[in-house]
Amino acid sequence: MSALFFPHRHLLGIAGLQPHEIGFLLDEAEQWVAMNRATQKHDNRLNGLTLINAFFENSTRTLLSFEIAGKRLGADVVNMHAAQSSVKKGETLIDTAMTLNAMRADMIVIRHASSGAVQLIADKVDCPVLNAGDGRHEHPTQALLDALTIRRRKGQIAGLVIAICGDVLHSRVARSNILALTALGADVRVVAPPTLIPPDLDRMHVARFTDMDAGLDGADVVMMLRLQTERMAGGFVPSLREYHAFWGLTPERLARARPDALVMHPGPMNRGVEIASSVADDPARSAITEQVEMGVAVRMACLDVLTRRARGMEGWA
Amino acid sequence: MSALFFPHRHLLGIAGLQPHEIGFLLDEAEQWVAMNRATQKHDNRLNGLTLINAFFENSTRTLLSFEIAGKRLGADVVNMHAAQSSVKKGETLIDTAMTLNAMRADMIVIRHASSGAVQLIADKVDCPVLNAGDGRHEHPTQALLDALTIRRRKGQIAGLVIAICGDVLHSRVARSNILALTALGADVRVVAPPTLIPPDLDRMHVARFTDMDAGLDGADVVMMLRLQTERMAGGFVPSLREYHAFWGLTPERLARARPDALVMHPGPMNRGVEIASSVADDPARSAITEQVEMGVAVRMACLDVLTRRARGMEGWA
Amino acid sequence: MSALFFPHRHLLGIAGLQPHEIGFLLDEAEQWVAMNRATQKHDNRLNGLTLINAFFENSTRTLLSFEIAGKRLGADVVNMHAAQSSVKKGETLIDTAMTLNAMRADMIVIRHASSGAVQLIADKVDCPVLNAGDGRHEHPTQALLDALTIRRRKGQIAGLVIAICGDVLHSRVARSNILALTALGADVRVVAPPTLIPPDLDRMHVARFTDMDAGLDGADVVMMLRLQTERMAGGFVPSLREYHAFWGLTPERLARARPDALVMHPGPMNRGVEIASSVADDPARSAITEQVEMGVAVRMACLDVLTRRARGMEGWA
Repeated sequence: MSALFFPHRHLLGIAGLQPHEIGFLLDEAEQWVAMNRATQKHDNRLNGLTLINAFFENSTRTLLSFEIAGKRLGADVVNMHAAQSSVKKGETLIDTAMTLNAMRADMIVIRHASSGAVQLIADKVDCPVLNAGDGRHEHPTQALLDALTIRRRKGQIAGLVIAICGDVLHSRVARSNILALTALGADVRVVAPPTLIPPDLDRMHVARFTDMDAGLDGADVVMMLRLQTERMAGGFVPSLREYHAFWGLTPERLARARPDALVMHPGPMNRGVEIASSVADDPARSAITEQVEMGVAVRMACLDVLTRRARGMEGWA
Repeated sequence: MSALFFPHRHLLGIAGLQPHEIGFLLDEAEQWVAMNRATQKHDNRLNGLTLINAFFENSTRTLLSFEIAGKRLGADVVNMHAAQSSVKKGETLIDTAMTLNAMRADMIVIRHASSGAVQLIADKVDCPVLNAGDGRHEHPTQALLDALTIRRRKGQIAGLVIAICGDVLHSRVARSNILALTALGADVRVVAPPTLIPPDLDRMHVARFTDMDAGLDGADVVMMLRLQTERMAGGFVPSLREYHAFWGLTPERLARARPDALVMHPGPMNRGVEIASSVADDPARSAITEQVEMGVAVRMACLDVLTRRARGMEGWA
Repeated sequence: MSALFFPHRHLLGIAGLQPHEIGFLLDEAEQWVAMNRATQKHDNRLNGLTLINAFFENSTRTLLSFEIAGKRLGADVVNMHAAQSSVKKGETLIDTAMTLNAMRADMIVIRHASSGAVQLIADKVDCPVLNAGDGRHEHPTQALLDALTIRRRKGQIAGLVIAICGDVLHSRVARSNILALTALGADVRVVAPPTLIPPDLDRMHVARFTDMDAGLDGADVVMMLRLQTERMAGGFVPSLREYHAFWGLTPERLARARPDALVMHPGPMNRGVEIASSVADDPARSAITEQVEMGVAVRMACLDVLTRRARGMEGWA
């Protein structure tokens, strides 16, 4: 039955997904948004399955979101934190992956600081792998949760002018979002200082603005990025005050966007740096906490869909 | 039905609780003491609910106690450790709280190094918040477990002479206990060196002793506090040997108390500092491991009672 | 019924186990190997029981293995990490143990850096204790999983020539394996540089080789050990290149063993130090990932068997 069909074994990125496959995951997530708003927020469909969250890079929010998603679906969930890991004892990434595989995980969620590390693991294990962010590469569930948030708030994504602003260079969030939103028919713009635009942006179908005011002009959605100073080691680190002056989303700047423009941020926010508090906290405009909520729902959908083959469900035969 | 009634949304402290409300929580805890002593120690009443333990300050014992309490009641339990947290990336406390809230927690248990931080979070989220210790402010479940321990060992609390001894200044345990035990009719004394008595003690109805022997005279309960040298940064740090000589609970000193006096300590103990090992390990006098046991039961009672409103139970309509 | 009978309260080591008791645990593990290979890998027999994994020394792999084992059997599982523990606040090991006991654990799994620490705890608590590795002393579940791996691959253990090679001095894995494999009738050899052979080896019934080629001659199983440079503080630390040249398992060296010799390693591996990658990854010879798989099954068997008395099962009356 086509409604159950998602032909990919893993979810390593948005790249390679067809628009209807993205839409399918968003549709699947809706049921979990509804369930999570009820008091009883638990389903048994992953009962008897083991989910391993292997986080080689710390990320409290994303880990928490996946852990809650897995537990609400009834899986046996275990977390592997890099900080306590055998990796510290010199074990290779592949050996760690083979170990998780040998423990008979039914699904492995991986966060890693190196682009491509998740693909490397996916090639070696017997179960579906879900990329929870790898280096500057991709963070597909972030793009899905952002798309779901926009779709719910704006009714649709096709045709919207979406400005992705700030530190695009260091952002897997930006990369996955550009891929997802352009696939869904949005008119995506990148708005960033020239030094924070990635060199391979030419290959994506996005407009480029190096002036914040111009970039926000007429936008339906303003998606701010976290300034990733922690990833700028060895490179240029801007003054935070200066960055805010030129690239921070202030009420004045936001006035350049459409009056009903949605404000988004993947979190955690640097208030007063890439975004002013008054904008972040504007109940009518900001969708920031809704993004977090959609995150759990989208991850539940991904865990469910990716394990259907193993669970012998229709559409996978 | 009044037996189910607890009119508070959160449990942020003992302050503000009526004596009968404290008694109600202790009564509720009794069933969990009994269940936890059986082999089958699991109840399903929190099935489908998500409990987040957000510990911004490390505390293995208290976290373990809450985690076990939540799991034994059937909740989906997740822990957020400060050391791995977005807080490190500069996120504000409120933003972290809003994130936990957006994930649709049904109950958030918070430990934080700053007094008042838990109240700040409680004001922002949609679910009950339980204070697991905030700065020098309160640690209500510790006071409840201490009261339950005393009530079970002594039959009642009203009229007992209870000496709270040692580092009162840095102790949220002392503060919550003073509030709870005086509310329940005990005759509470604070026994401490003048430098370790908090300036606002005058507002509480407790006698003050700056001589250990005098303070223990006739006591029914001797509640020792942990010397919190880790919170004395910048201030006066006593010599441990000297502290023991003047303020340590030795068998000789304990002889000043009533012959059947109960010895208590919230743990972890500094043996040979605030308490001599022979006293801590005296099976007839020491209630220290019983306190730990009561801790799990009291936390189960609090998790149960505070989520009754959301679970649509009687008395909350 | 004798099939359910295991007369020991704790599992602190292989020492003290009868050969038929070791065989009994291996037999019990077989059902979990089978279940873990199915999609539905969950059993309810530990429902309502609380398992505490108290790891005073970091060990991601072993902790993960026990956590998965406990969850797959339906227990309420909580982990206590040393790094966050009260132990840091100066609490004694016994006090920590008494705390876990007072929380009414039904089973405590302990890893500790000091030999004998697990015995110390077992003497104090009311529930079964399982040693997950203590200092240079024992690591019984590692020996059991190794024995199970060998038995499954070779059909039997009695009569096999098994060479345990490398850093025997610092290895609880070696000690437990020597005890288990000799008890099961294998012809065990220790192959190591003289400086890495423990002085008390004389008491065990094993041959000793200080030449790698001679030691591998005719071996049915080559069990490599991790070079524990992290435990050599203050002592002699060999050059890794030199160690590999003399003691690394290379294809050339392995050719001295029997043509169907099995290669094993407890992990995490130092590739290029004690073992060459081509050997570790040889699908026909290497049983390294199978060891990990057997680990979960063996731990499930131990958790099940050790809690039977508390669960009131036959054979314990």
